[in-house]
Amino acid sequence: MKDKSLAQRLYLDDLEVGQEFLSGEHALDADQIIAYARQFDPQPFHTDPEAAQGSFFQGLAASGWHTMSLTMRLLVESVPFAQGVIGAGGEVSWPQPTRPGDILRVKSRILEIRPSRSKPDRGLVKVQSLTLNQSDEVLLQLTANLLAFRKEG
Amino acid sequence: MKDKSLAQRLYLDDLEVGQEFLSGEHALDADQIIAYARQFDPQPFHTDPEAAQGSFFQGLAASGWHTMSLTMRLLVESVPFAQGVIGAGGEVSWPQPTRPGDILRVKSRILEIRPSRSKPDRGLVKVQSLTLNQSDEVLLQLTANLLAFRKEG
Repeated sequence: MKDKSLAQRLYLDDLEVGQEFLSGEHALDADQIIAYARQFDPQPFHTDPEAAQGSFFQGLAASGWHTMSLTMRLLVESVPFAQGVIGAGGEVSWPQPTRPGDILRVKSRILEIRPSRSKPDRGLVKVQSLTLNQSDEVLLQLTANLLAFRKEG
Repeated sequence: MKDKSLAQRLYLDDLEVGQEFLSGEHALDADQIIAYARQFDPQPFHTDPEAAQGSFFQGLAASGWHTMSLTMRLLVESVPFAQGVIGAGGEVSWPQPTRPGDILRVKSRILEIRPSRSKPDRGLVKVQSLTLNQSDEVLLQLTANLLAFRKEG
């Protein structure tokens, strides 16, 4: 019997523009928002529900980098590139705040595939990912250049 | 006596192109790298020092989003915008992997200031941040659009 997880791994030649990947879900709550923020983004609108009321966010909001970190988790679980999800760089924006109670999922789509000229064993794959909540509101948009490798001969 | 931390808060009119901010330091170790990765980026090259040897990274490397999260922590402590560090979006790249033992610090510089046309109380400030290690190698480059507010009349 084939190992299913191995069989599903995608190499550069398996990828095509327009290909889509849909992640599972992650349910976010205030405790997670506060725990991440205390460690990485200790600002009152991310750590203190009361102080957040009078802030720009008008209520507790997740750090944008927390939403990005959760997006990465969902990408790792849903984009089965053979060598893993390895990014060279990307653009991130947050059309609206992520809130306690949001249930996140990530839809990804291949926009472009560029085989490397100097390194024939690999290519750069531009992937757009949208992180949505349970009301289909876009919380985060990521456009990333991911490395993909050819299957070794 | 003035509250020093309040006196140092910067409003839109206090900012100028070329202004620089230097953060404190953060010492990274393998335990932190593995703890972040287990939660947000569970791939062997971020969670398992032995498996990482044979990977693209040829040894344990921090998740790029862990380096970004630590960069945010150092930004919050070093960029004293009056309403906090609030990003609308940005571009991130990782010129080289972040490794156990790296001591991170962040140098930021204002590239551009654009007062909002529709909302006269605020502006967008483009800030470039470089995350460096103890050998002055660039681990992460971030160009972010941050919100800054005018002092209320």
